[in-house]
Amino acid sequence: MNIPAEKLSAQLQAVFRAWGMSEPALEASARLMIAADLRGIDSHGAMMLVLYDELRREGRLEMNPQVKIARESPVTALVDGGGGLGHYPADVAMKLAITKAEKSGLAAVGVRHSNHFGAAGVYAMQAAERGLIGFATTNVWNLAIVPTRGKQSMFGTNPIAFAAPAGKNPAFCLDMATSTVAIGKLKLALLHGKPLPKGWALDMDGKVTEDAKAALAARKLTPVGGTAELSSHKGYGLAAMVEILSAMLTGAWYTPTREARHPGEKHFNVGHFFLAIDPKAFRGEGEFETDLDDMIDALRASLPADPSQPVLVHGDPERAAMKERERNGIPVPDALAAQLRAIAKSCGAEVSI
Amino acid sequence: MNIPAEKLSAQLQAVFRAWGMSEPALEASARLMIAADLRGIDSHGAMMLVLYDELRREGRLEMNPQVKIARESPVTALVDGGGGLGHYPADVAMKLAITKAEKSGLAAVGVRHSNHFGAAGVYAMQAAERGLIGFATTNVWNLAIVPTRGKQSMFGTNPIAFAAPAGKNPAFCLDMATSTVAIGKLKLALLHGKPLPKGWALDMDGKVTEDAKAALAARKLTPVGGTAELSSHKGYGLAAMVEILSAMLTGAWYTPTREARHPGEKHFNVGHFFLAIDPKAFRGEGEFETDLDDMIDALRASLPADPSQPVLVHGDPERAAMKERERNGIPVPDALAAQLRAIAKSCGAEVSI
Repeated sequence: MNIPAEKLSAQLQAVFRAWGMSEPALEASARLMIAADLRGIDSHGAMMLVLYDELRREGRLEMNPQVKIARESPVTALVDGGGGLGHYPADVAMKLAITKAEKSGLAAVGVRHSNHFGAAGVYAMQAAERGLIGFATTNVWNLAIVPTRGKQSMFGTNPIAFAAPAGKNPAFCLDMATSTVAIGKLKLALLHGKPLPKGWALDMDGKVTEDAKAALAARKLTPVGGTAELSSHKGYGLAAMVEILSAMLTGAWYTPTREARHPGEKHFNVGHFFLAIDPKAFRGEGEFETDLDDMIDALRASLPADPSQPVLVHGDPERAAMKERERNGIPVPDALAAQLRAIAKSCGAEVSI
Repeated sequence: MNIPAEKLSAQLQAVFRAWGMSEPALEASARLMIAADLRGIDSHGAMMLVLYDELRREGRLEMNPQVKIARESPVTALVDGGGGLGHYPADVAMKLAITKAEKSGLAAVGVRHSNHFGAAGVYAMQAAERGLIGFATTNVWNLAIVPTRGKQSMFGTNPIAFAAPAGKNPAFCLDMATSTVAIGKLKLALLHGKPLPKGWALDMDGKVTEDAKAALAARKLTPVGGTAELSSHKGYGLAAMVEILSAMLTGAWYTPTREARHPGEKHFNVGHFFLAIDPKAFRGEGEFETDLDDMIDALRASLPADPSQPVLVHGDPERAAMKERERNGIPVPDALAAQLRAIAKSCGAEVSI
């Protein structure tokens, strides 16, 4: 079934309200989850409510946390999420980075004591929509990425998002996990009974596997690059960079040492990092955007290896999804719709989808 | 033959002096080239003198450019390289970013109208040596990376470097081209008569090739990821991000449109981007470094797939090379030594190696 964005958002908000979240926080969470769904990033949209409900029931999420600015300077800030869902403190942080960058040309804002914040690209795009370059990262408590040569998962899928405003073209927007693929792709391969491409995932012994079932059981993804031969140390390095910016710089926790350092803590203390840059601090009005148009036009005009598969620019697939879904609604599989209704019922929220 | 760093540096300086470079510029170029050699990044060290000599003779390099700060604010600056070699303006820019970040917590400095600046990691490390997080990128005029689905090279190898200071451990330092491998690796495979791993390079039609000769003739490298199936769109997006920060943000030129936009120009107008972040703007004294130590220790202690190949942390191979080369000198193949001597002779500089 397809559900209009407003209707799905209202259902999420009703649940969050029943869970005791504040109005600003539930508005931000619903808006940013629906933004991911609209952009076609289903894995980071309404579907996440199922996980959030689990975390809540396990006592891992504060439902009405005090979100506050713990430190601040004209070009930096540190937001404390108070142990709640990540969307609201992340939204506060990115907006703060934008406001500061509009004044000073550049700003960085970190978030600590947070949790899952949805799709990183949605935050980077907030900057691009204001004419700024936006950069967003988060660490992820759920370990998945195995370092080159290793056999233990040592990082989450630690995403990087980067967005930049163009002139006549829509904004450039890169939004990537630093793993080769997402866990979801392994599930799809299993569903279709297909072998995994060599380089997606490892088995329990750290060996490349084509067996989707073994890969899902092991939960050991390769870093971008896939294998050592194809330079997976680059993806491994990028995952570490994201961890350093999101966790070490903010005071969030690194999962592999969390239990030893903070025994008995139920919160994951996830961290995020946001950067905004005003092109006008470097270029004359409109020059950056014109030059970026030039690059985007050249990429679109560049020859494809297969004429039926033109070269794309980052942001294209998300924009196509958005256009279609704003018109036709967000596709919600029956099984997910049933789960969302059950969650609503169980907390006494009105079922409206 | 192995040549002590000081001796090799003196030879480079003598040549640069004969070429008419200023003392600060030739000091920076020699120091930063030798730093790359010491770190084992031979492709970006003294060997580059051969290319620089070609560019000079073609009239593509100013030998005594006016390097100046074109724009400046408390947390941003734009340096104009005046069309000379990149090391000196890049050195000025990174030092400016460091000074500003020490005052304000954060700073970004761009460079335009520059050229090849050597190894990106050397600049990022300057920040780490001062207790800051450093980030450095450059665009590269020599096209090499083919976008996912494409068959034309649309970016240079556009590197990203990221360094961060630890406490008891040496600094973390990622220094990576956004191509899967460097051109040098294709040359090595040809030399050894080995087929290329699938995913390193493409032939003239944009198809994956294992033929090193065909790959070298085509000069079409894949972005990190290698193939579409292994998510090469991520490497492609990172290459584009580097281009946006290094060229569009600074006013440098994008190679595929350079000739159309600036007909007859002999300069390449390369751009760089540097960012410095002071952890003390976010964390208490020493907290960042301790937490990074924790991550580095955990990575080193994590189980390897093959016990004889322990998990490494970014910066390890460069540090090992530096230790060895500071003691035993920099290995310079006879053919390269002969080329360096010939270059010195041809410009009337003393031959001292």
